[in-house]
Amino acid sequence: MLVKDCILSAPGKAILHGEHAVVHGKVALAVSVNLRTYLRIKATTDGKVCINLPNINTFLCWDVTELKSLVPDPCGNKEEGKLLNAELVKCLREFAGITNGNLDTSNMATLAFLYIYISMFGSSELPSLMVTVWSELPTGAGLGSSAAFSVCLAAALLCASGAISPPLRESEHTARWCQEDLELINSWAFQGEMIIHGNPSGVDNAVGTWGGMLRFLSGKIIPLSRVPLLRILLTNTKVPRSTKVLVAGVKDKINKFPTIMTPVLDSVDAISNTCEKVLSEMTHEPITGEHYKILEELIDINQHHLNVMGVGHPALDTLCRVTLARGLHSKLTGAGGGGCGITLLRPEDEDKEMTELCGLSGASGLAAVKYES
Amino acid sequence: MLVKDCILSAPGKAILHGEHAVVHGKVALAVSVNLRTYLRIKATTDGKVCINLPNINTFLCWDVTELKSLVPDPCGNKEEGKLLNAELVKCLREFAGITNGNLDTSNMATLAFLYIYISMFGSSELPSLMVTVWSELPTGAGLGSSAAFSVCLAAALLCASGAISPPLRESEHTARWCQEDLELINSWAFQGEMIIHGNPSGVDNAVGTWGGMLRFLSGKIIPLSRVPLLRILLTNTKVPRSTKVLVAGVKDKINKFPTIMTPVLDSVDAISNTCEKVLSEMTHEPITGEHYKILEELIDINQHHLNVMGVGHPALDTLCRVTLARGLHSKLTGAGGGGCGITLLRPEDEDKEMTELCGLSGASGLAAVKYES
Repeated sequence: MLVKDCILSAPGKAILHGEHAVVHGKVALAVSVNLRTYLRIKATTDGKVCINLPNINTFLCWDVTELKSLVPDPCGNKEEGKLLNAELVKCLREFAGITNGNLDTSNMATLAFLYIYISMFGSSELPSLMVTVWSELPTGAGLGSSAAFSVCLAAALLCASGAISPPLRESEHTARWCQEDLELINSWAFQGEMIIHGNPSGVDNAVGTWGGMLRFLSGKIIPLSRVPLLRILLTNTKVPRSTKVLVAGVKDKINKFPTIMTPVLDSVDAISNTCEKVLSEMTHEPITGEHYKILEELIDINQHHLNVMGVGHPALDTLCRVTLARGLHSKLTGAGGGGCGITLLRPEDEDKEMTELCGLSGASGLAAVKYES
Repeated sequence: MLVKDCILSAPGKAILHGEHAVVHGKVALAVSVNLRTYLRIKATTDGKVCINLPNINTFLCWDVTELKSLVPDPCGNKEEGKLLNAELVKCLREFAGITNGNLDTSNMATLAFLYIYISMFGSSELPSLMVTVWSELPTGAGLGSSAAFSVCLAAALLCASGAISPPLRESEHTARWCQEDLELINSWAFQGEMIIHGNPSGVDNAVGTWGGMLRFLSGKIIPLSRVPLLRILLTNTKVPRSTKVLVAGVKDKINKFPTIMTPVLDSVDAISNTCEKVLSEMTHEPITGEHYKILEELIDINQHHLNVMGVGHPALDTLCRVTLARGLHSKLTGAGGGGCGITLLRPEDEDKEMTELCGLSGASGLAAVKYES
């Protein structure tokens, strides 16, 4: 089997509203951002599988014959692309010498790659290839870098295996996939996320796959049909944090003060719903300053609520204060406790010097471009 | 009638929790603070009524005979001590040359004095006396300075008129009144508040009269029987603001975002109830760090909620940030938008230099001390 060379890309994501509340059955809105991860897949003839991740200083090669021995029994569940084959994960960990508690980015990316590669090609011939992935997304910042990686990986390897049609016809320069193919890509990307994160929500890989904006509620992910393009300034506080610890802290606070915290979650739910409604209006009627004013008010209220949940950080407070001094409104995005903040820009801010720093929310999803070798 | 000389004092108040939410039918907790207003009443023989308010540079005298002409028809409603005699207020405004829109502190205090004096003595002989009032409370800072003034005034003039018994027996140095007398004092003080504020809640004069802590819900004021003495740092941002404008702003926000704001009010309600429960526990069981930790968490959450309502101010944010850097938790108290903030101190903070700045919440209510002329 000769893999077709191509370059794929998938966007990162930001949570607009509903982070943390989503864990407690409330709506969250996720948007793609125009910071992307790129993957180049190239057929080789040296009988090796190589993965090159320059952002995280990782370059690894294996002999195809060596990997063949790891292929699990064909009665596995890989066809489903939904449940993880725990036995294979364990086996790959041992093979790559990654202990269970080691969550190092490079190790996790390697494990996800090997898992998808072997699961996908195991029943046939293992192809010789070189995969290079680079990204505009910082890792560990809550911007969905691992999901964008998994989406690209899943799409590239599904294409290479022939499970989905190659996206590019001769006449086109860039192309995307049909809904059915995207569903399959997304389900494989979710497996990559499961390997990297343990218990992901599935929002990040869905945004990476479909782009645009998604509504997430009780495990159900609904892409929003029409949303306006928002200009968003992304700020990485670079304060490290543990999502797990933050989520547990919110849960503890809800248990400690149920009558106080439950209404706060309800209010966040209403913020997400109101935001969705306003964004929908912005696609149906002329966009006015009042639309932006409401979006800004929602950002401010939610940021206070997130502070009430205990997931704020002085660096995020500083972001809010500094941007507010310029008339801009910010909130944390994702787990909080550091990580990234988003600042909504108005169209009239276009000429300000911050333009270069900003990300566009509602960027397109997974895309492929022709690779001229 | 010869007025008995004495010195009275009444405490100021701070809202612990529930400001603004109380306007929308939620519970508020008000506490007295040990910053007091003092009133000295002294019988004179010069046929004059004088009021001396050194804090606000006011010293005014009137001939008793001149005031006699202002006494309204005895079929008025003064006995009730509940409803304001609008006709008398109008007449006194004209007499003192105070236009309707003029809300100057000195004018309002003068009007309240003349109203209570004339209403109380009108049916009998107008006594010749000198009333001096001075205060540790700043005016216009939301600490109930006008209520403390009205409470002292009502008590002094009710005593002077013989409507209530003089509080001091020979053997006592300080004394207070029975519940029935306090009710009467409070109802007259409320009239003073109505003149000064237009549409007061009645909380401030109740705290000034009874001291301690009060629960306020839908116009009903319930003194809490036992509460611990809390050490509170009061900070006056000296940022001027209009309570009326702030209250209207909150109402507008609730109307604009009902599904988002209604839960926030519910959460504030739960904060007041939780706070009351914890304070009650602190009087029944040994006080622990955990009690204080909860009180601090409630302060932080409520401050965020008040910011959500739009009644915060950068000066209050600074207060919160600066005190938090010392491990202390602060919130605005009262109308917000500037005004005062409260910071909860722990017993172990006693030796810090801030001791001199702090107010004690739960101070005693109206009190009288013997006046040695």
